[in-house]
Amino acid sequence: MNDLFLRACRNEPTERRPVWLMRQAGRYLPEYRAVREKVDFLTLCRTPELAAEVTLQPVRRLGVDAAIIFADILLPLDAMGAGLHFAAGDGPTFDRPVRTAADVAALADPDVERELGYVFAAIGEAQRGLAALPAERSVPLIGFGGTPWTLAAYLVEGGASKHFGHLLSWSFEDPRGLAQLLRRLAEVSARYLTAQVDAGAQAIQLFDTWGGLLDAKRFRELALPALRIVVEALRDRPEWVPLIYYLNNGAHLLPELRDLPVEVLSVDWRLPLDEVRTIVGPGKVLQGNLDPTALLASPQRIEEATAELLRRGGGGGHVVNLGHGILPQTPPEHAQAFVSAVQRHALAPVG
Amino acid sequence: MNDLFLRACRNEPTERRPVWLMRQAGRYLPEYRAVREKVDFLTLCRTPELAAEVTLQPVRRLGVDAAIIFADILLPLDAMGAGLHFAAGDGPTFDRPVRTAADVAALADPDVERELGYVFAAIGEAQRGLAALPAERSVPLIGFGGTPWTLAAYLVEGGASKHFGHLLSWSFEDPRGLAQLLRRLAEVSARYLTAQVDAGAQAIQLFDTWGGLLDAKRFRELALPALRIVVEALRDRPEWVPLIYYLNNGAHLLPELRDLPVEVLSVDWRLPLDEVRTIVGPGKVLQGNLDPTALLASPQRIEEATAELLRRGGGGGHVVNLGHGILPQTPPEHAQAFVSAVQRHALAPVG
Repeated sequence: MNDLFLRACRNEPTERRPVWLMRQAGRYLPEYRAVREKVDFLTLCRTPELAAEVTLQPVRRLGVDAAIIFADILLPLDAMGAGLHFAAGDGPTFDRPVRTAADVAALADPDVERELGYVFAAIGEAQRGLAALPAERSVPLIGFGGTPWTLAAYLVEGGASKHFGHLLSWSFEDPRGLAQLLRRLAEVSARYLTAQVDAGAQAIQLFDTWGGLLDAKRFRELALPALRIVVEALRDRPEWVPLIYYLNNGAHLLPELRDLPVEVLSVDWRLPLDEVRTIVGPGKVLQGNLDPTALLASPQRIEEATAELLRRGGGGGHVVNLGHGILPQTPPEHAQAFVSAVQRHALAPVG
Repeated sequence: MNDLFLRACRNEPTERRPVWLMRQAGRYLPEYRAVREKVDFLTLCRTPELAAEVTLQPVRRLGVDAAIIFADILLPLDAMGAGLHFAAGDGPTFDRPVRTAADVAALADPDVERELGYVFAAIGEAQRGLAALPAERSVPLIGFGGTPWTLAAYLVEGGASKHFGHLLSWSFEDPRGLAQLLRRLAEVSARYLTAQVDAGAQAIQLFDTWGGLLDAKRFRELALPALRIVVEALRDRPEWVPLIYYLNNGAHLLPELRDLPVEVLSVDWRLPLDEVRTIVGPGKVLQGNLDPTALLASPQRIEEATAELLRRGGGGGHVVNLGHGILPQTPPEHAQAFVSAVQRHALAPVG
């Protein structure tokens, strides 16, 4: 197996840097759109054979160094009774947004194994698919979930939002009440993610898409304690899996992350990786951070931007990725240009 | 006249800190909505008597220490021939987005005095209204515009956008071509804003809503040179007016702003003002930066958050404001609680 990704996550020396793309199983791929013509998004998530199939698509086409299970961070919230829908072309919506202590109390405490079993089945199915590939094409499988804060962001607003007024005003009005919700989300997430590991996930990425909305004080008081519950539950297991924490739009919060016990810190494109490293210290492997809009430019520009990224990231452990999910309008051959540029790169080994 | 705001912008000692609110003339006020029931948004912008009327509404109701002329940053783009519309409930759209060198060449070079004369007429009208108020209620009038980068963001996308794919991929593909557009926007903005000063604006705020999308390298190479053209044109005038540069979501760009020749730097809520001051140095007056969602919480929480804001901002010149525009769902009495909390505040004078 190509275990470059796992070795890089452990900050071991590697012959070259591994590369994968956030949202690599997604709408930019015609073979993904072909599957989606037959089933809607939630049905795809809930059908293990199909979820495993789209998980493998970018491995086959692009030769990335890791697969990530196809799922959605909001699935556990549906299992908690919030009533999740995806309308065509729109973002997610919840039938029952959570905005009061009574709403928090009314959330179900799901039997994760039973209610989210389709995710674990998809992980098993994807692992069988990966094992069937030629050895050099077979790669590790990443599981994932949203952080409690980011899950709360969607659950409190009832979907995506521009200003997150319900969520953020709650953080001012009743931080203890909101912390209660975050704790509930952390407990369910901890069970959900450890079950992903049991099912075969070899690394876990925690997506904090909305952590950057907070100033450091509220991040420390609200988001971080709940995140730590999840991280510690995963640390507490006999199986050791690398943990990746992805923080979007959080350059101002990097000093808070130095002591978070995760191997890999994944960041957006706003700060170059050498500056991120200066702030968080040499102990963390960094993941990222090409601006995904760079993949809309020509392959020549993509190669130039990738060379710059490799240069800025070369001072320590580095898993190459985008700074945010790949955009649906990206031509697949541009994604290939990025992956190939990284894999051809002949810089000295890092780590 | 209450000239607290102008003295604070000049970093002179003041008896207390001035306060105003971004978007203070807006939908959260019932008297504004009453005007908007009669005319649409663009008609309101283009009718000097009405624009002046809504400009004065928050001065009358809240007793803020500055007025800001009612207008929209996108008006000069309409004068350049891009075809601006506001559909009810939606954001702005342009009939002719600008995405190529040919599109840039096709932009009109407007006679600003003639085509945007309604803005200057509104400034004159608002100044007459302010002069008619009791002396202690009469306050300075701020003019404003978008920065070239932020204007380009809307013009290239053809309106608001989630990922700004056209704009940002252009920044990778052909930075010189995009710089050409930014220069055109800077030249028109310079004429438009100096004409606002001629018409009676006593300070100018430059809104960089989307500057924070950029990493420091592209900010330095693209956004900053165009911004400097505007700033220098305003600096080059016999009348001295304070310049305020507002940067949204740009904590990672603050080191780039130390040498920008503006009196006031206005920032969002992500970094506390004492940390901003450490980065940009003591020479800049800071404006901001309460999270606007704090005004959705109860008056008691608003007072607590305001006390914390005044504490963090107290180490130098400080114009109190929000970190972003006031939200439409804000109860007007909550805006009042914020303004009153600042104005009652008995901390030692600053500056």
